Amino acid sequence: MALTFPFSAIVAQDEMKLAILISAIDPSIGGVLVFGDRGTGKSTTVRALAALLPPMEAVVNCPYGCAPGKQAGLCKVCDGPEAKDPPKTRQVPVPVVDMPLGVTEDRVVGALDLERALTQGEKAFEPGLLARAHRGFLYIDEVNLLEDHLVDLLLDVAASGENVVEREGLSVRHPAKFVLIGSGNPEEGELRPQLLDRFGLSVEIGTPEDLPTRIEVVRRRDAFEKDPEGFTKRFEKEDAELRKRITAGRDLLPEVVVPDAALERAAQLCLALGTDGLRGELTLIRAARGLAAFEGDKEVTDEHLKRVAPPALRHRLRRNPLDDAGSSVRVGRAIEELFGA
Amino acid sequence: MALTFPFSAIVAQDEMKLAILISAIDPSIGGVLVFGDRGTGKSTTVRALAALLPPMEAVVNCPYGCAPGKQAGLCKVCDGPEAKDPPKTRQVPVPVVDMPLGVTEDRVVGALDLERALTQGEKAFEPGLLARAHRGFLYIDEVNLLEDHLVDLLLDVAASGENVVEREGLSVRHPAKFVLIGSGNPEEGELRPQLLDRFGLSVEIGTPEDLPTRIEVVRRRDAFEKDPEGFTKRFEKEDAELRKRITAGRDLLPEVVVPDAALERAAQLCLALGTDGLRGELTLIRAARGLAAFEGDKEVTDEHLKRVAPPALRHRLRRNPLDDAGSSVRVGRAIEELFGA
Amino acid sequence: MALTFPFSAIVAQDEMKLAILISAIDPSIGGVLVFGDRGTGKSTTVRALAALLPPMEAVVNCPYGCAPGKQAGLCKVCDGPEAKDPPKTRQVPVPVVDMPLGVTEDRVVGALDLERALTQGEKAFEPGLLARAHRGFLYIDEVNLLEDHLVDLLLDVAASGENVVEREGLSVRHPAKFVLIGSGNPEEGELRPQLLDRFGLSVEIGTPEDLPTRIEVVRRRDAFEKDPEGFTKRFEKEDAELRKRITAGRDLLPEVVVPDAALERAAQLCLALGTDGLRGELTLIRAARGLAAFEGDKEVTDEHLKRVAPPALRHRLRRNPLDDAGSSVRVGRAIEELFGA
Amino acid sequence: MALTFPFSAIVAQDEMKLAILISAIDPSIGGVLVFGDRGTGKSTTVRALAALLPPMEAVVNCPYGCAPGKQAGLCKVCDGPEAKDPPKTRQVPVPVVDMPLGVTEDRVVGALDLERALTQGEKAFEPGLLARAHRGFLYIDEVNLLEDHLVDLLLDVAASGENVVEREGLSVRHPAKFVLIGSGNPEEGELRPQLLDRFGLSVEIGTPEDLPTRIEVVRRRDAFEKDPEGFTKRFEKEDAELRKRITAGRDLLPEVVVPDAALERAAQLCLALGTDGLRGELTLIRAARGLAAFEGDKEVTDEHLKRVAPPALRHRLRRNPLDDAGSSVRVGRAIEELFGA
Amino acid sequence: MALTFPFSAIVAQDEMKLAILISAIDPSIGGVLVFGDRGTGKSTTVRALAALLPPMEAVVNCPYGCAPGKQAGLCKVCDGPEAKDPPKTRQVPVPVVDMPLGVTEDRVVGALDLERALTQGEKAFEPGLLARAHRGFLYIDEVNLLEDHLVDLLLDVAASGENVVEREGLSVRHPAKFVLIGSGNPEEGELRPQLLDRFGLSVEIGTPEDLPTRIEVVRRRDAFEKDPEGFTKRFEKEDAELRKRITAGRDLLPEVVVPDAALERAAQLCLALGTDGLRGELTLIRAARGLAAFEGDKEVTDEHLKRVAPPALRHRLRRNPLDDAGSSVRVGRAIEELFGA
Amino acid sequence: MALTFPFSAIVAQDEMKLAILISAIDPSIGGVLVFGDRGTGKSTTVRALAALLPPMEAVVNCPYGCAPGKQAGLCKVCDGPEAKDPPKTRQVPVPVVDMPLGVTEDRVVGALDLERALTQGEKAFEPGLLARAHRGFLYIDEVNLLEDHLVDLLLDVAASGENVVEREGLSVRHPAKFVLIGSGNPEEGELRPQLLDRFGLSVEIGTPEDLPTRIEVVRRRDAFEKDPEGFTKRFEKEDAELRKRITAGRDLLPEVVVPDAALERAAQLCLALGTDGLRGELTLIRAARGLAAFEGDKEVTDEHLKRVAPPALRHRLRRNPLDDAGSSVRVGRAIEELFGA
Repeated sequence: MALTFPFSAIVAQDEMKLAILISAIDPSIGGVLVFGDRGTGKSTTVRALAALLPPMEAVVNCPYGCAPGKQAGLCKVCDGPEAKDPPKTRQVPVPVVDMPLGVTEDRVVGALDLERALTQGEKAFEPGLLARAHRGFLYIDEVNLLEDHLVDLLLDVAASGENVVEREGLSVRHPAKFVLIGSGNPEEGELRPQLLDRFGLSVEIGTPEDLPTRIEVVRRRDAFEKDPEGFTKRFEKEDAELRKRITAGRDLLPEVVVPDAALERAAQLCLALGTDGLRGELTLIRAARGLAAFEGDKEVTDEHLKRVAPPALRHRLRRNPLDDAGSSVRVGRAIEELFGA
Repeated sequence: MALTFPFSAIVAQDEMKLAILISAIDPSIGGVLVFGDRGTGKSTTVRALAALLPPMEAVVNCPYGCAPGKQAGLCKVCDGPEAKDPPKTRQVPVPVVDMPLGVTEDRVVGALDLERALTQGEKAFEPGLLARAHRGFLYIDEVNLLEDHLVDLLLDVAASGENVVEREGLSVRHPAKFVLIGSGNPEEGELRPQLLDRFGLSVEIGTPEDLPTRIEVVRRRDAFEKDPEGFTKRFEKEDAELRKRITAGRDLLPEVVVPDAALERAAQLCLALGTDGLRGELTLIRAARGLAAFEGDKEVTDEHLKRVAPPALRHRLRRNPLDDAGSSVRVGRAIEELFGA
Repeated sequence: MALTFPFSAIVAQDEMKLAILISAIDPSIGGVLVFGDRGTGKSTTVRALAALLPPMEAVVNCPYGCAPGKQAGLCKVCDGPEAKDPPKTRQVPVPVVDMPLGVTEDRVVGALDLERALTQGEKAFEPGLLARAHRGFLYIDEVNLLEDHLVDLLLDVAASGENVVEREGLSVRHPAKFVLIGSGNPEEGELRPQLLDRFGLSVEIGTPEDLPTRIEVVRRRDAFEKDPEGFTKRFEKEDAELRKRITAGRDLLPEVVVPDAALERAAQLCLALGTDGLRGELTLIRAARGLAAFEGDKEVTDEHLKRVAPPALRHRLRRNPLDDAGSSVRVGRAIEELFGA
Repeated sequence: MALTFPFSAIVAQDEMKLAILISAIDPSIGGVLVFGDRGTGKSTTVRALAALLPPMEAVVNCPYGCAPGKQAGLCKVCDGPEAKDPPKTRQVPVPVVDMPLGVTEDRVVGALDLERALTQGEKAFEPGLLARAHRGFLYIDEVNLLEDHLVDLLLDVAASGENVVEREGLSVRHPAKFVLIGSGNPEEGELRPQLLDRFGLSVEIGTPEDLPTRIEVVRRRDAFEKDPEGFTKRFEKEDAELRKRITAGRDLLPEVVVPDAALERAAQLCLALGTDGLRGELTLIRAARGLAAFEGDKEVTDEHLKRVAPPALRHRLRRNPLDDAGSSVRVGRAIEELFGA
Repeated sequence: MALTFPFSAIVAQDEMKLAILISAIDPSIGGVLVFGDRGTGKSTTVRALAALLPPMEAVVNCPYGCAPGKQAGLCKVCDGPEAKDPPKTRQVPVPVVDMPLGVTEDRVVGALDLERALTQGEKAFEPGLLARAHRGFLYIDEVNLLEDHLVDLLLDVAASGENVVEREGLSVRHPAKFVLIGSGNPEEGELRPQLLDRFGLSVEIGTPEDLPTRIEVVRRRDAFEKDPEGFTKRFEKEDAELRKRITAGRDLLPEVVVPDAALERAAQLCLALGTDGLRGELTLIRAARGLAAFEGDKEVTDEHLKRVAPPALRHRLRRNPLDDAGSSVRVGRAIEELFGA
Repeated sequence: MALTFPFSAIVAQDEMKLAILISAIDPSIGGVLVFGDRGTGKSTTVRALAALLPPMEAVVNCPYGCAPGKQAGLCKVCDGPEAKDPPKTRQVPVPVVDMPLGVTEDRVVGALDLERALTQGEKAFEPGLLARAHRGFLYIDEVNLLEDHLVDLLLDVAASGENVVEREGLSVRHPAKFVLIGSGNPEEGELRPQLLDRFGLSVEIGTPEDLPTRIEVVRRRDAFEKDPEGFTKRFEKEDAELRKRITAGRDLLPEVVVPDAALERAAQLCLALGTDGLRGELTLIRAARGLAAFEGDKEVTDEHLKRVAPPALRHRLRRNPLDDAGSSVRVGRAIEELFGA
């Protein structure tokens, strides 16, 4: 209903913005985890994203907003015998679903449609927030306060792109491809390493320490609140340009080449850091490719790898009892040793 | 039903009264947290507020009491196709909702209307206390005894001005702009820093230590209980004047200017105190502006900043292990260093 | 159904009996907390009160037993448009509701009337024990074993004189003015200081140590059980006299004057004892006035203050780590210092 | 259905048998608590009681089995306007209700009659085990494993002789006079002192240590199991005699005199032992009177007091840190000092 | 449905097999507790028992499978006025009910028949597993993982032979005579001594340590799995013989004499071991008689006592802090001292 | 819906793949437990299995997908009087059921079909995931996070091949033969030894340490994600060959001979390792036979035993306080001592 703060007007917090933009170009990156101080604009950034993204084409009457076409992963209606070819479509905004506090599990995964059950005596499925987030973003504030099993479930659906519901006598599966964005304050409780590892990227944000930046943040925020429409207009052009870069990046993505040297670099970096499993390498490669596409480059280079290595790897390190440097420092050191300063 | 103790008759407790008055002028200030001894008139003050505030214009038949006009944040009825323009309105008192003990969550956020579900077989939403508090105040006694997730939810709604309900198969959102006032006794349990930070202002109150004040409190309380009507009449004029100042302050608020020097002062103060994030600065600026408006000043000055800095910042400090002075003392020292005594 | 042990036949335990009588004269005193050994007649005394109190006038058909008249605090029926003026009334005994063990919260506060909901499809309120206790007494044995939130709720209703129910889709408020009497054994668990402070008076009782008193208690108890009717008759006259004094005290109460000197004495005593907040002073004044009324005195004197100071203040002291004397001793010492022996 | 082991055939365990017989003569004694080793015949004794007791006269069609007559404590039906005078009665066995394990609270206190609620839409009360135990005995095996609040409830009902039900929208009270017999093993968990004190008598039983007694127990048990009918016949005469003594004792009870000397002796004994409250004295007097009646004596003597003092007092002693003798030893010593050996 | 491993084909584990056979001859023995390593054939043995036992005569249409005849302990149908005399019967296998994991309490004790309640509006009882086990065996794997109150309930029903259901407004009792067989691994959690004592016999089993036995077990198991029918045929004759011995033993049981010397021996043994209560003696005598019957002997001798003393007593010893020998060793030593080696 | 990564394209992880293939040849092996680092392809391998396995013949309309024929273990429909002989069948893929997170117990074991209960008033069983997994595989990711009682239940059903449901008034049993595959990370919580022992095989997997393997994994994964169809085609031939070997192995299995020498070797190995019970031997023999069948050998040799001993035994060792070598090392040493290097 109300206008949201423009994405381009957000001061500083570059790593968070980059991570979110890369995930907008390649949604298979595995979600973004934003950890940092309270009051640093985490929620504002995510809400700004909704207004920034270019609209998408969706099949009319499809309860999940499927894209037209014949690709894998359509819902039962769009892939069923009664689907029209080509289907009627319309332009809709990319969903950015903000998981409200106190939401019950049945509303997240979907549940028995009680109204139809009571009035028509039939067992129908009422889609939940996972369905609504299909093809978009699902934002969870204070993800570290959520119960583990729910985080696990959300990551599972995000990874498989499919929501499998087995409850209350229902047995339903529908597509649910979305980017999970979680934010939290590490002082409030930690995520299990097992869950951390399943997020694609992680970024750390903090309160700006220099006076001019702080004043600028407060001034913009205040200006926006006093006159949302005027303020939004001021940043309209910058937002439009960013939107174009996203669209161009998405088109370029399938053509970006990952040379063997880059694969080897990624593996060396992960070996040096001792990350468990191979999700680190996979994400590093994908994030570098996404960055290349965003920047209009057709090949992944060391430079791309270096820039995305911290968000792709820092949450996958084991605690090293002999090295009490933070994760970011350790990733930085490994990059330096491998790529040189 | 019964008469309430008049606001103007409340002896001492100036900081609490000021914080509540500022939030009556600028409800976006983020709520007030009142911490202090039992038996010091916290509840009395809030209940007095209800009688003090000037009545407001509300759309007839709107379940949320929306204001007439075309601004953002109207409910679906007032903003819908069948809304009359201009709508029929009437004068109603500003709601001051006192959250009763033992209230169930469904009554707070609203829930499925069971009666209509059972008798008419339709799934209708029955608004809760958050709806009733729209455009007014929501008071929670002993907020520190409430479960964190409920406090979180209340702060979330208060911040966004919107209540998003996803439960029992309902998916509803409606405006719920209110000032949250929480009271509590720090000896009974603390709020998480994450929650503290989300309150706009915080005030500390104590038992008066001087004999004449104490006698006056008891005398007035006793007089009120013996003859509520006579006593209320005695303070009618003072209450009316205060009411006028509130109305004038609200009108003046959009015109109050915040000079760059004030922005810089606010940022310096917060940097010096090391508050996390930028909510401290934002609230400090807003509270100073609210105070200026209440006092009829058209520009925020150091004087305004100094007066509202303690309630705006004292609950945002981190524990400093090297400085065991209380928060109020630390804020006071920082003000002195920055502004001079 | 059965006869109860006569109030006048209770041996010793004078402080408890006085506290209860004062609260019968001024129900706004805030309840009585009785702490002491098991088997010392706590329940017997409360049950005896029911038979002792003079009957009251109540509106016929009013579900809450409202008093006739036009004062504040009537229920919706008696204060509604269809109420007759004057209403038809009848004499009813003052309710002394004994909260049974295992009572469920819905029966305490009232709840949805399931029978009407199921058979007539309408959402009606079925009043609970709080409604039944209106204008009388609510007795809770072993109050320290009750859950804090329930005690809190009971004190809240007792203080406001109104029961606000927000549950199961109901939103009801009705008058519920009663004196809360709680008994308990401190060895079984303590009340939170926050709750203690909300009780008006507190008394401590113990097992009599002298042989003749013990024998007299056993002899009377045994005599009563062998022949309840004969025994009751023996104390009828004493009970009737007490009843007259209560009625006279109630009539005198509004006329009892509290001179400024008494207000000052009360404040000095509380300052000396360091009680938090001002509930101590308020209760002390009120209890002294109640005692004066009970004794037929038209002005509160030091003597009255001295007698009610222990029950009015002893439960409001903070633990003093440098003074391990019990609360009663500390109150006694402060009285002595202030008033002289 | 099956035959029970005859009361007279129980070998040894004299204190337990005496306590139960006294409570059969004076049910107001307050219940019996049997503590001791497993496998010592606790359950057997209680079950034997059912067959031993003389049948009682009960009103036909009264759901609570009220006695005919006009005494206090009748149920609403027997005391109601439609009750016949004199009512039709029949002989029924004294109820000895064995509380089954896993019983739910609704079955203990009674509950809404679901069948009638569902089929006839009316809210009727379905009496529970407390109703069934009216005028008889309620036996709880392993009472120390029961939840405290349930034990408390049972003791409360047993003491008041009335079951007050406030649940599920029901508000019912009916007579429920019964003797509560609890058994337990102290190794399995203790009762709170508060609960202990509310039991009238307590007895301790153990495994017999001498060979002939052990063999006799096993032989009788084995004989009973092989031929229940034959075995029962062997003890028919002894059981009949005991039954006569119970009936005679009940008739004599109101006439037994308690001289002042006995009252004084009881008080001295309790003072010497330092029992809290006066339940000790009251029970001691009553138990002595019950014993006198059982033995056909018309006046309570020292001898009676001495015999019942251990079961009446041993569970009311405070732990004495300077005296680690067991309770039984301490009661014994006090008796010796007071009465001489 | 499938064939079970034949009882006679079970290698070693003689004590367990004997205990189960004795309880098949005298079901009043009180159940068997099997403790030992995982993977040693506990479940296999119990399941084999079902196929081994001779079929029994049961009344047609009796929901509890009562035996024909006029003995005590019939269900209400068989003992009711409409029962035919003699009733129609048929041969049914002895029930060996295997309590499935995750069974709910309502299915164990029986519950309200929801289907009939909903469709016919009547409150009927639907028997549970206790009813199904009547006249047979109830097997609980990992009994030490069951909640204590459920074990207690099962032992209570097993001991009384009657299932008393007081729940959900139902008040039903029906015969439920069965032998409880519990198995468990002591490393996984212990049973309370109170529960241990209520089991009749206890046996300990372990993994065979000698190579040929191990190979034989694996070979037989493997042969059975490859060709169940062929394997079963191989042991048909041995199973038939065992079946005959069981039938003969049951017929002989009532005639087996227990001489006084045997009673004395049993008491001496229990005294020497210091078992609490007299269940030890009772079980020892009964088990010895059962063994005598199984072996075709008409009188209980020392030899019988010696063989059954370990399973009858080892779980009834108190921990002796001065003697850290295991229970089996202590029972063995006591036998040796008493009977000589 | 989507294509799965081909089984043959999985790099390294040979022990896991072998264990799964053996269990595909002999499903009675008892399930496979996969423990290891996150991100090492556990889920990928199991999902690949579904595409690899040859389809199976299933009875049309059978709710459990029974195989045609007359063997034991058919469901009530296929084994019932109305079953056609021969039944109509069709080819279906082998079920590989992936237990979704957040599944409720009723969906696992099956439950009352609410729709039919409500609309047709009949109590029908709605099969759950156990039914769906019949004749196939049931995969549980993070099995160590599941509640013990559910793991226990799953292992019980897997072992017996039958699902016994006793809940909600239902009493159903149906065939449910499946291989349970559990995966987990030992850092996240351990399974009870009792549960570990009930899994047939256990494998440990880790992150590859050599660079070329890591690069190859990432390259294949990336190639598959870019072009699933092309990538799948590349490995079609290898998958087809593996499929043939499985079919051949299943046909050969009943003919594979286990010589006495092999039985003895197995027993010696288990004795040397001190495994509890005999499940170790049984599984070792079966796994060796399965391996022989997979490799086309007609007799079990030492070589087969050596290869399957680690997965068959490593999870059955007791912690040895004197030997802190891991289980795999201890099994390896025992093999070496027995068979020589």
